[in-house]
Amino acid sequence: MPNKRKNDPRAMRERITRSAYDLFQEHGYAGTSMQAIAGAAGVTSGAIHHHFPTKEAIGLAVIEADVSSAFRELWLEPLAAETSALAVTLKVFRKLAKEFDSQGYVRGCPINNLTLELGSMNSIFREPLRMLFDEWRVQLSSALSEERGTLSKNAKNNDATANLVIAAYSGAMSMAKAEQSGGPLRKVADELEKLLAA
Amino acid sequence: MPNKRKNDPRAMRERITRSAYDLFQEHGYAGTSMQAIAGAAGVTSGAIHHHFPTKEAIGLAVIEADVSSAFRELWLEPLAAETSALAVTLKVFRKLAKEFDSQGYVRGCPINNLTLELGSMNSIFREPLRMLFDEWRVQLSSALSEERGTLSKNAKNNDATANLVIAAYSGAMSMAKAEQSGGPLRKVADELEKLLAA
Repeated sequence: MPNKRKNDPRAMRERITRSAYDLFQEHGYAGTSMQAIAGAAGVTSGAIHHHFPTKEAIGLAVIEADVSSAFRELWLEPLAAETSALAVTLKVFRKLAKEFDSQGYVRGCPINNLTLELGSMNSIFREPLRMLFDEWRVQLSSALSEERGTLSKNAKNNDATANLVIAAYSGAMSMAKAEQSGGPLRKVADELEKLLAA
Repeated sequence: MPNKRKNDPRAMRERITRSAYDLFQEHGYAGTSMQAIAGAAGVTSGAIHHHFPTKEAIGLAVIEADVSSAFRELWLEPLAAETSALAVTLKVFRKLAKEFDSQGYVRGCPINNLTLELGSMNSIFREPLRMLFDEWRVQLSSALSEERGTLSKNAKNNDATANLVIAAYSGAMSMAKAEQSGGPLRKVADELEKLLAA
């Protein structure tokens, strides 16, 4: 039954949000039309409206599915699996710096990109984006608390350190995007290592 | 001659870019139409096209005029006038945190907002935005070099510290926008103070 997958509603939803995720990363949310998403996903305009009545509905699904899973894979799984939160942090910065330099372009952090475009006061996107930042801070802070001995005594407390690391990462991603280079991520990782390692 | 100011082309350009700056901060660049800018500036559609043939032309003028001058006032002038770059940095973070909490909303850093929306590889906006980040790093690094004795010996070097401070600021502004609160700026400033003060 070769048609089965094609008509599988879940697979089609996934194809639509995956295409939307890529287009949002490239052109921003406001810069992406429903038509462009349908074209990239290879579905008809009728099919896309059947799954997602509005672009807002696609945006929310992209945050809940694609952005969340990229974030889990990059940050939460390594934080849960490895013993040093600082080592995980530095590895993420340096891995992305290398990736950006070898691919020759930087689209930036999807959470950050969407937050800065859509994070205004009354936006329906603000709450799910805020929750991602929250989860990030809680997990990082908890992972940092398990390695207190290997962190500099100058660090104020786990929550403050987690806030600084997340801020430094988000900002370094902006700078990397402005420069289209991994340089800022590498420099910020070096400085965080000097300041935070015991 | 009460009409003089109204017909002053420079004043009209300034009114247009100022209105565009506000609308970009609120709705993003892609989310703002030429018509909306004309409406907010109180000029006709003909007048706006006379000054700015395209929305791109307005975007560039906003970066060169309004974004640059906000940035100069907030960061460069205090860095040039005061003796401690670290003190200036902490003051900026804490001043904005207080402002955000008292006004009850956060629109975020205009350089950051525009970079994340418009900083893609082939964008005509990338170069002027990159130059703002560059100037920021150079001025901050030079100001830090004059207070080496009051900075922690753990800091790697002025350029690395400047990169971290700018990244932490940009990222804390994203988090403040996601939370619509000054909290992240305050926490990140506290941690930077602990880590960077001698």
